[in-house]
Amino acid sequence: MESKTIGVIGLGLMGASLCKALGACGHTILGRDTDEHVQKYALLTETIKGELTEEKIPECDYLFLAVYPGAAVEALEKMASLIRKDTIVCDLCGVKQAVCEPCFTLAQQYGFTFIGGHPMAGKQFSGIKYADGNLYQGATMILVPRQQEDLFLVSRLSDLLRGAGFRSVTVTTPEKHDEMIAFTSQLAHVVSNAYIKSPTAAEHLAFSAGSYRDLTRVAKLNEDMWTELFLDNAEHLGFELDCLIRSLQEYRDAIAADDAKTLKRLLKEGRERKEAIDTEWKDK
Amino acid sequence: MESKTIGVIGLGLMGASLCKALGACGHTILGRDTDEHVQKYALLTETIKGELTEEKIPECDYLFLAVYPGAAVEALEKMASLIRKDTIVCDLCGVKQAVCEPCFTLAQQYGFTFIGGHPMAGKQFSGIKYADGNLYQGATMILVPRQQEDLFLVSRLSDLLRGAGFRSVTVTTPEKHDEMIAFTSQLAHVVSNAYIKSPTAAEHLAFSAGSYRDLTRVAKLNEDMWTELFLDNAEHLGFELDCLIRSLQEYRDAIAADDAKTLKRLLKEGRERKEAIDTEWKDK
Repeated sequence: MESKTIGVIGLGLMGASLCKALGACGHTILGRDTDEHVQKYALLTETIKGELTEEKIPECDYLFLAVYPGAAVEALEKMASLIRKDTIVCDLCGVKQAVCEPCFTLAQQYGFTFIGGHPMAGKQFSGIKYADGNLYQGATMILVPRQQEDLFLVSRLSDLLRGAGFRSVTVTTPEKHDEMIAFTSQLAHVVSNAYIKSPTAAEHLAFSAGSYRDLTRVAKLNEDMWTELFLDNAEHLGFELDCLIRSLQEYRDAIAADDAKTLKRLLKEGRERKEAIDTEWKDK
Repeated sequence: MESKTIGVIGLGLMGASLCKALGACGHTILGRDTDEHVQKYALLTETIKGELTEEKIPECDYLFLAVYPGAAVEALEKMASLIRKDTIVCDLCGVKQAVCEPCFTLAQQYGFTFIGGHPMAGKQFSGIKYADGNLYQGATMILVPRQQEDLFLVSRLSDLLRGAGFRSVTVTTPEKHDEMIAFTSQLAHVVSNAYIKSPTAAEHLAFSAGSYRDLTRVAKLNEDMWTELFLDNAEHLGFELDCLIRSLQEYRDAIAADDAKTLKRLLKEGRERKEAIDTEWKDK
């Protein structure tokens, strides 16, 4: 692939890792972070080649918004008039309806292309210090183009991302993305964060099995980011929480009633569900 | 350690793995399973040296009950009169109050020693086919002696278990064990089993992050065994389920009310709790 100029807004874990991965492909990486120390650190460590100033925006072939959802929309609003019409803009946010709707509108208004993005990758640490050029190696990228988008543009972005290490690209709608992510990621984070709050949690040393560790692995989350992501996806996450609470209450009631038959049925249903889903996965 | 004769009742994953581990130490292993095919398989594969018939029970220096809680108590009742007074009997069940109380009584009545046991090890597969002499390598064994038990006997059992690969032995009471295990293991299994029941679960291919995989890893459980374990520990597990449901409802309410301040506080509390517990762990 020809060398391109790529601008990245936000040099946290996700943004700075993307800078490193794309930089390693020979592209010219310009970056910007609102934190001056982060900006300097990015230059010193050659994570970016230069600062993404307003004057540089028209030079960018691709622009990535690697900040929280609200900040991503705000950043795009500010620079929309400077973006070239053949530039592809993509975000890395964990919700897509709240980001894609205003960004699609801006893209149409100013003539550039916006394609929503959500890399299925991460670490439990955040910040540029943990940035890793291999973070996206083998990962899936979810892309959310406008419905009437030119597929050639989606494939141009896909090709760039494959260079950064992504193994596969899945195209979906903002609604479908948010519905799925509420279940696979957001609900897991809420449950993990809630699980650790039991009064028993402080005393369990030595009794700790692998299942406890799995259930609480993502409890240590960044509450600023997740508060925004959860509220941006309130309807879908609320639905998942309601399902889970209702389901847990069924087991709870069967246990309180010493009802072995119902409890066994509930557990069997869960086991069979998991087996069916794992089998379906294996076949794909 | 001198070669001993060890009897194992129940040749499933846990029992047969113990046979292999102790057999490798040079002990003579006798085993018994109610399933004839399992019994034959154990002999053919030299997992056991011979069948643990009634006549052989007085030869055993140690006896392990590696069956479900109800079956363990029943097995001990049947053979109690045949057990030598210097024999140590131990079970491998996941609940301790329901097993230890009747077994302590039998031990006192017939003069042998009973020490409850729960190995912090396992696999997601069950049965002798998955038995593994290294299953207990590096694991913790929870031991639950009678309060007035001779500590010399506890340490005799510990020494035997260290030979089988256990790295450490933790001594506790039946009540404490059941309280802790409700949180670290049983609750995790219920949540995992409930999590997969969302209607969204069947459609999430490609959106699946590590957090989903962690949360549902133990969903594929043996419902016969877990129904018995859960009902034997109904009070503690019920308490944990109530805590978790109440806690999840708090996040749910904050999300429904679009209340960023409360949601952020709830998430922060969970993060800080997890950090504090992880730090405490690291120091031990």
